[in-house]
Order: sequence, then structure tokens, then C-alpha cells
Amino acid sequence: MATTTQKKRRANALRDVKVSQFPGAAPGSILIEMGETKIICTASVASDPPRWLPKDEEGNFVKGWVTAEYNMLPGSTPDRKRRGNDSRGTEIQRLIGRALRAAVDLKKMPGVAITCDCDVIKADGGTRTASITGAWIALSKAVQWAMSEGLIEKNPIKGPMAAISVGIIDGQAFLDLDYELDVRAEVDMNVAMNHKGQFVEVQGTGEAGVFSRAELDEMMDLAEKGIKKLIKVQKAALKS
Amino acid sequence: MATTTQKKRRANALRDVKVSQFPGAAPGSILIEMGETKIICTASVASDPPRWLPKDEEGNFVKGWVTAEYNMLPGSTPDRKRRGNDSRGTEIQRLIGRALRAAVDLKKMPGVAITCDCDVIKADGGTRTASITGAWIALSKAVQWAMSEGLIEKNPIKGPMAAISVGIIDGQAFLDLDYELDVRAEVDMNVAMNHKGQFVEVQGTGEAGVFSRAELDEMMDLAEKGIKKLIKVQKAALKS
Amino acid sequence: MATTTQKKRRANALRDVKVSQFPGAAPGSILIEMGETKIICTASVASDPPRWLPKDEEGNFVKGWVTAEYNMLPGSTPDRKRRGNDSRGTEIQRLIGRALRAAVDLKKMPGVAITCDCDVIKADGGTRTASITGAWIALSKAVQWAMSEGLIEKNPIKGPMAAISVGIIDGQAFLDLDYELDVRAEVDMNVAMNHKGQFVEVQGTGEAGVFSRAELDEMMDLAEKGIKKLIKVQKAALKS
Amino acid sequence: MATTTQKKRRANALRDVKVSQFPGAAPGSILIEMGETKIICTASVASDPPRWLPKDEEGNFVKGWVTAEYNMLPGSTPDRKRRGNDSRGTEIQRLIGRALRAAVDLKKMPGVAITCDCDVIKADGGTRTASITGAWIALSKAVQWAMSEGLIEKNPIKGPMAAISVGIIDGQAFLDLDYELDVRAEVDMNVAMNHKGQFVEVQGTGEAGVFSRAELDEMMDLAEKGIKKLIKVQKAALKS
Amino acid sequence: MATTTQKKRRANALRDVKVSQFPGAAPGSILIEMGETKIICTASVASDPPRWLPKDEEGNFVKGWVTAEYNMLPGSTPDRKRRGNDSRGTEIQRLIGRALRAAVDLKKMPGVAITCDCDVIKADGGTRTASITGAWIALSKAVQWAMSEGLIEKNPIKGPMAAISVGIIDGQAFLDLDYELDVRAEVDMNVAMNHKGQFVEVQGTGEAGVFSRAELDEMMDLAEKGIKKLIKVQKAALKS
Amino acid sequence: MATTTQKKRRANALRDVKVSQFPGAAPGSILIEMGETKIICTASVASDPPRWLPKDEEGNFVKGWVTAEYNMLPGSTPDRKRRGNDSRGTEIQRLIGRALRAAVDLKKMPGVAITCDCDVIKADGGTRTASITGAWIALSKAVQWAMSEGLIEKNPIKGPMAAISVGIIDGQAFLDLDYELDVRAEVDMNVAMNHKGQFVEVQGTGEAGVFSRAELDEMMDLAEKGIKKLIKVQKAALKS
Repeated sequence: MATTTQKKRRANALRDVKVSQFPGAAPGSILIEMGETKIICTASVASDPPRWLPKDEEGNFVKGWVTAEYNMLPGSTPDRKRRGNDSRGTEIQRLIGRALRAAVDLKKMPGVAITCDCDVIKADGGTRTASITGAWIALSKAVQWAMSEGLIEKNPIKGPMAAISVGIIDGQAFLDLDYELDVRAEVDMNVAMNHKGQFVEVQGTGEAGVFSRAELDEMMDLAEKGIKKLIKVQKAALKS
Repeated sequence: MATTTQKKRRANALRDVKVSQFPGAAPGSILIEMGETKIICTASVASDPPRWLPKDEEGNFVKGWVTAEYNMLPGSTPDRKRRGNDSRGTEIQRLIGRALRAAVDLKKMPGVAITCDCDVIKADGGTRTASITGAWIALSKAVQWAMSEGLIEKNPIKGPMAAISVGIIDGQAFLDLDYELDVRAEVDMNVAMNHKGQFVEVQGTGEAGVFSRAELDEMMDLAEKGIKKLIKVQKAALKS
Repeated sequence: MATTTQKKRRANALRDVKVSQFPGAAPGSILIEMGETKIICTASVASDPPRWLPKDEEGNFVKGWVTAEYNMLPGSTPDRKRRGNDSRGTEIQRLIGRALRAAVDLKKMPGVAITCDCDVIKADGGTRTASITGAWIALSKAVQWAMSEGLIEKNPIKGPMAAISVGIIDGQAFLDLDYELDVRAEVDMNVAMNHKGQFVEVQGTGEAGVFSRAELDEMMDLAEKGIKKLIKVQKAALKS
Repeated sequence: MATTTQKKRRANALRDVKVSQFPGAAPGSILIEMGETKIICTASVASDPPRWLPKDEEGNFVKGWVTAEYNMLPGSTPDRKRRGNDSRGTEIQRLIGRALRAAVDLKKMPGVAITCDCDVIKADGGTRTASITGAWIALSKAVQWAMSEGLIEKNPIKGPMAAISVGIIDGQAFLDLDYELDVRAEVDMNVAMNHKGQFVEVQGTGEAGVFSRAELDEMMDLAEKGIKKLIKVQKAALKS
Repeated sequence: MATTTQKKRRANALRDVKVSQFPGAAPGSILIEMGETKIICTASVASDPPRWLPKDEEGNFVKGWVTAEYNMLPGSTPDRKRRGNDSRGTEIQRLIGRALRAAVDLKKMPGVAITCDCDVIKADGGTRTASITGAWIALSKAVQWAMSEGLIEKNPIKGPMAAISVGIIDGQAFLDLDYELDVRAEVDMNVAMNHKGQFVEVQGTGEAGVFSRAELDEMMDLAEKGIKKLIKVQKAALKS
Repeated sequence: MATTTQKKRRANALRDVKVSQFPGAAPGSILIEMGETKIICTASVASDPPRWLPKDEEGNFVKGWVTAEYNMLPGSTPDRKRRGNDSRGTEIQRLIGRALRAAVDLKKMPGVAITCDCDVIKADGGTRTASITGAWIALSKAVQWAMSEGLIEKNPIKGPMAAISVGIIDGQAFLDLDYELDVRAEVDMNVAMNHKGQFVEVQGTGEAGVFSRAELDEMMDLAEKGIKKLIKVQKAALKS
């Protein structure tokens, strides 16, 4: 799956990142590509937030809600991916939802529910972090639409939120793992960070190995640099 | 959803049809667009046909199988479409599967199972017929790949298979209904036909009305003309 | 399953049709037999139509609803049929529901929901069309009951609605396929028609073959004649 | 639902019992009627017993299996019964299965699985006990068929098995409760007994009341008498 | 599983019974041990009874509800028990619920719903009857809490309710079957009785055999004696 | 729920930790208590590892497998917890399984599957990390049993693995959050570490806030100290 170009990629370099408008009926609808990983991210707006959201004395919602769903299309993998939920997907969409909510002041969108759908059309590693990066763009576009429609008064987006994977391969830290690298990695880490350099998610897992504090630090350094670049891409995508 | 251009479309004219290669890991992966209706069609090849397929005395499969799945992405409709199966989708994917199998000599692909996935990314009417037209192209590409890999010896594709919708609106037959027309139609008909002008599916339904034999004939005439044009598009898509 | 008598049946002849009252607690409850195909059709009346039905300004429903469920009892086939939904059954019950609704003016039964249950007790081909023919009778009886109870004021039944299967076997059109004929048929078609000779469903499928316009016409001719006879049976059943 | 005749029935009298042959494709297929309670009982034979049945050293099953499924058709109750499993039905079909297995020497039908389906077409109390009584007849007919087909060598049926309900109403023991009586009963008891007067199931429940040892004895006396009559009906049904 | 001590137990003797307070957040939370059978019984109080409970004219519930759930923890059996519902568990929890409700005047707890959870941590026979005995204690503690909180005014508990199993092994009646005895038993009977010697459940089953009226009587005698002892244990547990 | 003692606990102190043997039929069965959080951890051994585990040329498994299930009993929370899977539980049990596998050399237990069940009986914060700490003990006991039974030859346990939660409250890092602290925490972090000070899981989440690199470092320092103490408890528990 990985091309020759990718193999030569330096350990601290991102894959090629591309964001483009994508056809769809949802107010936010984009295609994000990180190398051969390609994901459709759409954001739909509705006026039916979850019932458990707090209300004021007059019965009006005092908050809104942002949630995410993650799905791999059957043709996204060389062996056809069966449709339907699995536990990995459940875990991933919870991660995406948390990261997006950390970028939003939910009190500024009372009674509004935005669902961000991340449908992977080609999977080559790093789909969960690319989903966060792309879904934030779709979410921002949906918010702009909701403001133009009068559903939201003030912009609830606090600022950009992006994510990247990083790992350790043969003892060396490596940024933005594609599938081939991911298979070789002893440690796999996903980091979500905002434009101020603050973290909302740091998830390091060493199923095929363990990692020291020093390696944790090295991976965090790489992730910070990568996310800063992604945030520039996000800003550019919103302007176009 | 329908644009001004579409409203002026003549009753016997197709919407603009466009087929393009689409990124994905499956051997067949295309995007078909009929006006604003846009569908990703992928075809995946596996060596695990359904167990009930007949075998010879030595336990080898004497046939292969072709099946289809139909799905609308959440962002494909203005109101977000919830994920998961519904009875309408079940009915549609059975229709697509039957039409595709009618275009294939299953005995020429023993032990090979091809699944065609039709994922609607924007729905503006006619998704089931566009799925048939597009899935046949993806299927053909997957067959070419399977032949190049040595999984299939002789080409099992008998010839093109395409489909179109046709309806009756205010007493007049109309080809290729978009969503706005579909809502207004008293009768809705879906026709699948091969390159020899032979039919494999004729499904006319008049929930909001009824139709006479004369109207049935008129709709069949329109459908035949439309499908002939679609088959030209299919052939062109396979050559490119 | 098919008897000697059936094999000698002419290509344009219906099997023996019999409708009888059947025990049950629902207001409409009949047994329809077409040869060895035997189906219990009941119609139950309730005051809980689907929520999405339109309401007027005062919150009252402006329409009613008619729906159908189709089921094969485990003992209806030589190999025991497992209980539970399958995609074939889903497709069939949608077809039955559409055909029945086309025979009813739903605005004349506001707030009333009628469910027609078709439970096959012996399956020998043509169960979906016999279900339509039988369910219309049960529906009519349930409507009579609902009128006598004051739940419906004016009769919403527009007129009879019946259905039959027709196919092509060895190049010849054949009416009312039993299981043995159905297995041999290259093309299988189901037609639902009202007492005015207007169609509401025309579903021709050629999984084991294809069919020409001329064959379509020939099958439609046979179907029209068969349904006219069935409508006479329906009328007689309602009078008795 | 209960007729005037039933109201006058004596406390120690059964309702009218009737068993008739019923159309169906299963080898055993009968209709049992106890007053207005009417149930289709079919028995299907297959060669796929549950995997956990014990096998001998050569891998052959040393036993067969008998199981039951219980279902109420939607039209069996004045308010339409929704399809699908519920916990009450689960409990009932386990009871039926146990009672039937107690009438069979499973070692005499190695590798044979018989499923008895009890589908209630009209429910007026006592459906679980009537199911046992009727299913035993269908089971016996299926066994006869299996022996004629050479699937079973020696008759595994030990003898008749029937069941009846009995309850306490206003302090008085009452046999064979119809729906109206069942609603009034403080205690409800179901008893299954064989032709030797031996019990396999005694289930007394007092949700609306409690019962003394003396009342238990009185109910057992009534049940014994009722079941003896039912066993005569079973024998007659098998001879006809 | 059964220890030497148990093997020597007399046929009319209970296993050692022990009830102790158990950590948990529910107002009623105890551990009941009968020999090696050990079950956590908790009772939770909520103000959301089932919707179908009757209401008065002002829309207030006129009754409360008591229900039970039964579950075996995976580590409760030597071969790990898979999580999730099965038909046996469904039947058991219905039995527990009925027995508990027979001990409560539901009209004295309007609008209050109490759920009793019986989680088996070690299974050595008699789990369903031990669950009834233990759940009644947890229920009583929860009622005391609800009264202290003002949710219930008057004590709705009518009196103790306990249950025991009894069986016939090699022709002899035996009280309180552990797993080893249960496997050998021809007949298995579960009896629930209140402090007045009145029964609410008598369930005798002879899957591996049958039983006479005399044997039924003998088992009932044993059960009565056993339950009287259990009721003393229940009373002591509530005082401590 | 939190007691006065806990409120006075220093920010860098663990709650009281207690591990005790617990009744159950599984070879490993313990109760772990961290303050008021109490969890039953059992480990069951079977010879049916997942089918996808790699095999050698002779068809023998070359590895074993360790997995975990996490569940909260209904009575573990003040408001009764409904039974059944939810997405939070799915995510937690995946985490537990990964951490345990990192402590095991799966190649030393070919063909052996060990399932660790963590059933929370009282929830007061930190259930997922206490589950890891407790499940490792149950796993070790099950491994000892499997070795004594000859199912495993060499001890596959690499060494202790424990976990702890840590968070930031009002800007201050805090170890081992109970429920009350957890609600107040802006950031919540779970860390799993082995006896060599190497990490296998680092999961920091800031749904109610964000965190800097400095805060990450501070939390990691606290976690390291806490886990070292837990590993001493684990070792002591295995010796007793």
C-alpha cells in the first residue's frame, strides 16, 4: 500500500496532507487525505440534542452537543471490511467526539446538535487522527452554516484542534505512521492538541512493547511539531 | 436540491452522467454521478463464496457468486441519515445483486465471490438504478483485476447492464427522476436492461396512483432509450 | 409437492382458488388457498398509526395507515423454515403493504391503523401474490367491522385489489407458478391490479434469464386475465 | 371471548376438545381446539441435532433430540400481538420441550432432531397446556413418518403425554381455565402427566394469591381427571 | 465441587446457610451462601415504575412494582460462563420476580420500583431458590431505606418469603440439592413458601424421570420443613 | 460516597488498597478494594483461543491469548446501573486486555486462552485502573493453576503490571481519583506501568479542560510513584 516515496519519508515528516471540498448534502463536507489515507468528513446540524443535556428553569437547553461517528467503507481495505460496528470503531469515535468537544464552547450553541461523520474510503494508517483533523474542518463549516441560518448566534469554536499519530520503530521515534510503519511499531501514540499547544488527548499504547519516560518525551516532541503543521492546513482549508 | 438546470430538463433526457476513478483499496472503485446523485461503487474480490453454492464431487465449487450492498452515508441527505440497515435498503441491495448476477456467467468464476458496495454520498433520486449502472463498472474492473491475478480464467461478464428510473408526473412519462420529480410522481418505475435490449428487472410501483398498460408501454419506451445511453457511458468508462 | 393435476394445468389457467373464514381474534381472519399454497390472512385494527402521519392544526391525524407483515410458519416447507426476519420476507411485506394501500383512501380512515398479517401455513409457490389477494379480503372485513364500531365513517376501500404470478418456462408464458414451475422459470413476474384493470405493482425479474418486450407483453396479458378471475373470488368471499 | 356455554361449564369439566389434520408441509401437522383456544401444532424432522449431544467413539450420535417453539400469531388476540420473542414465550417453549422429551426415549432416535412448532391462532386461555397436548400428537405423527422413511428404527415414543391448566377462583378449584377464568384466578397451575398417571411438570403459581397444601391436592385431583380424558382424545386422533 | 461434608449430609438437612452484609452502593446489598452456592443480592429503588402500571384519575400511580434480574458471573462455574441472556436465565428471573411480588402489597408503595439483582458468584446447585431467599432480604432492607427516605409510608412487606429445591434421587426424596445431587436427580422441584406455610410457587420437573402423587407429597413435606428454617435465617439477618 | 478520611488524603497518596481471596469457581478469583471502589477479578482458563491466532505447519497454535471483560453490577452505583454492554465498557475492557497482554509472553502459553473478568461491585472512581491491577493478580493465580495442571510449561508472566489514575484539580495534580475528585478534575489520566518502570498505556483526556507538557510531566511523576506501591501490594497478594 505504501509507496516508495513514503518509505523515504524522514522520521519527523508528515505525509502529504490535502483537504478538499467534497459533494454531499450536509453543511460541512470535506475529503481529507494524508498520503494514501483518505477520509470523508461531514458535519450535520440538527435541533435534537441528547435528552440528558441540562436545561434551564423554562425548559430550554443551556448547552448544545457535538458527537462523532467513525466508519470504514467496505472498499477501504484490500480485504473487504465488513459493515457494522466493532469495538475498535466504538473506541475511535468516542476519541474523536471528545477531541472535537474540547474545541467547542458548548454553551454557545444551546439546543444544537452537530454530528461529525468520518467515513474512511482508503485506510493506510492514522485514520483516527486524520478523522479528528478533518472532522474539525467539517465541524467549523457546519458551524458557519448554522450561524448563517441563525441557529447559532456566536461562534462556539474556540480554535483549531488537530491530531497525529507517532510511534517507535526499531527504537526510533517516527511521525505519522502509515500502515506499513504501524505494523512494525512497538509503540503507537495518538496525540490531539489545540492551537495553543495544549493537549486534550494523549494515548500511548505499547501492545508489542513498552516505552520509557524518555521515549514518551521524544514522541510528544514530534507530535507537537506535526500538529502545528496540520493546524496551518486546517486554517487554509477554512479560508478557501 | 435540484438545480434550475434540472427543472428545464426535457422529459426524455437523462441528467448529466459522469463516471470517474475513485480512491480506494478495492480492485474496482469508481464514483458515478447522475446530476446531483453521487455514489461510490467498489467491488471487492474474495475466495469465500457462500457455503450453499453447489460443489462437484471433489468438493470444488462449480460456480462463483456476486452480491451487492447498498448504503447511504449520513451526510448524503439534508437531514442526517442514521446509519444501519432498514427495510428499504435491504430491498434495494437485493435488486442490485440480482441485476448484476444477470450480467455474469457465474460458472466462469468458480469459488470466487465478488461484493459490490454502493455507498451513496449525495442522494437526489434514482440511487438504486445509478447503483446498478455504477456497480456494473466496478464489477467489471474487479473482474479484470481477478483475471490478471489468475483468480478467474475466462471473462464471466456477459455484457453491460444498466438501469434507470422512469415515472409519470401529471399524466406525462418522465425519464430519470431526481428527488423533486420523484416526490411528485404518481408512478415510479425502475428498469434494468442489458446491451441486447433484454430486461432483467422491471419494477413499477404506483403507491400514489395507478397506471394503465398504455402508460406502462410509454415508460418502457423511455427507459429503453435512457439505458442505451448509459451503456455507452459504461463502455467508455471501462476503456479509460 | 405439486400434484399430477397441477402438472396438467394449462399455461393460462389459475390453480384452484378457495377462500374460507378462519378462526382468530382479529376482525378480519380468512384462509386463502391457491392449489397447495395456503395462507392465513388476518387484519387487526388499532388507533395508533405511525407518528409521522400528518396531523391538522388541532393535532388530529388527517390520514390512517395500512401495513402488512409476511411470515412463513416453520411447518410450511418440507425443510423446516427457521423463524425470524430475513431480507426476502422484508421485501415481500413491503410489496404487500404498497398494494393494499393503493386500494384504500387513507384520508377516509383518519387515526386508524390496520395491520394485515399473512402467515403462510403451506408454501407451494406464489405466496406473495396470494398474500395480496387474501389480505385485501381480510382488510375489507376489518374495515366493515371498524365501520360497525364507529371507528371509520365512510368506507375507505376504493375497490378490489388482487395479484398473481406469471413466468416464462422453456420460452412459454405460464400463469400462477407453483413451486415446481417456479424453479424451472427463467423469468418470474408478479402483478397487482385493481378492478379497473389498473396496475399498482409490476415486478418482473429474470435472475435465471432475461426477457424481451414481447415476452413482457405476453406475461402482462396472462396476468390481467388471471387477476380478473381472482377479483371475482374476492367479491364472492366478501358476500358470503 | 368466552361464550355463554363456557360460563355454564362445571368446575370439573374440560372445554370441548377437537383435534383435526391441518394442511402443512411438515410430516406432523394438526390443529387442536380447546373451546376457543386454537393452536396449529407441526413437527418437523431433521438430521442435525444440537452439537452438544453425546457421540460414541466413532463419532455417531447416541441420542436424538426433541425441542419445541411456541408462538402467538398477531391475529390470535383481540389487540394485535406483536411478532417476536418475549420472555413469557421463552419460558413456555422450554416447558413444552421438557414435557415432550419426557415422553420419548431419545436413545431410540440417534442423530434425529424433531422440532415441534406450536402456533396459536386464537388465544382463549390454556395455550401452553393445549400446546403440549397437541404437540405430542404432531410429534407422534412425525415419528411414524420418520420410521416409514427409515430414519428411526424403533418407536421412541414411550406413551401419551398431555397437560391441562387448573386454578382456584373464589376459593374453588376449577379445571381448564379459559381467558375470562384465568383473569379471575388467584392461583394458576399447569400439570403435565403421562398415561400411567405419572407427572413430568407441576407448575403452580400464585401471583395474585397463595395456596395451601389442601388446595394443591384439590387442584392435582382435578388435573389428573382432565388429563386422562385428553389422553383418550390423543389416542383417537392418532388412529384416525 | 461438593465437599465431603456435603456428601454425608442427611437427605432432610439444609446445607449451611449464611447471610452477610456485602459492599455495594444499593440500599439493599447482601451475600447469601448455601454451602458452596454464593449469590450477591442487591435491591435498588427508583421512581420509574413500568408505564403500564395503573394510575388514578389525577395521573398518579396507584401501585408500585418489584422485579428481579438473575445473572451468573463468568467465574461462577468451572467452565467460564459466557455473559449475556439465555432462556434459562429469563425463566429464572421471572420466577424470582413473581415470588417476591407475592410477599409485597404493591399498593403500599405507589410509584416506587424496586429491582432485585441476583448475581451468582459461585454456582453449586439451587441458585434460583437461594436467589429468592436472598433477594427477599435485600428487598426488605431496601424497603427500610425507602421508608427512612420518605419514599414509602407504610411497610409493604407482608412477611418473609423463602424457597428451596428438593428432588428425588434413587427413589429417595432429598432436600436442598447441590450440583452433584442435582445431576443425579430424576426429579427436581422448587418451592417458594411464606411464613404462614402458604405457597406461591411449586415447580416440579421430571426431565430425567417422572414422579407419582406420593413422591410429590413427600417432596412437599421436605420443602416445607426446609423453608421454615430459611425463614428463621431471614428474620435473623434483618435484625443484625 | 467518599468518606471524610478520603477528603483529607494528600494529593500524592493512594487510597487504602486491599486484595483478598474471593469465592468463585475460576482458578483465579480475588477481590480488590481501593478505598470504596471494589472489584471482583476472576481469571478462567480454556483451550479455545481465537481462531485467528497463528499456527505452525502441523496446525498447532504457536501462541496463546489473554483477554478481559469489564462489567459493572447493577448495585454498584447509587442509581442502578442497567445491565448490558455500552461503549464506555467496550473501551475499558480493550484497555485492560492490552495492559495484561503486555505483561505476558503469549508464546509460552500456546493454545491456552485466559479470560479475565472484572466485575465492579462498588464504583467510586478508578475502576478501570483497579481492574488492571486486580486482574493481573487473578491472571497470575490462573497461570499458576494452569502450570500445576500441565496446561502451561513455563511461566509466561513477564512481571507485575499495575495501573493508576491521576488528574488535575484546580490546577494541582492529584493521585488516585475517587468519584468525587473525578467529577471535579479538568484532566483525567490513566497510566499502566510494569515493574521496570516501563509504560504500556498512557491515556490522558481533557474533556473538561486541556493540559500542558508540564502538567503531563507532573501527572506522570505521581503515577510512577503510585504504581510502584501497587506492585508491592500485587507481589504480597501472590505470596499469601
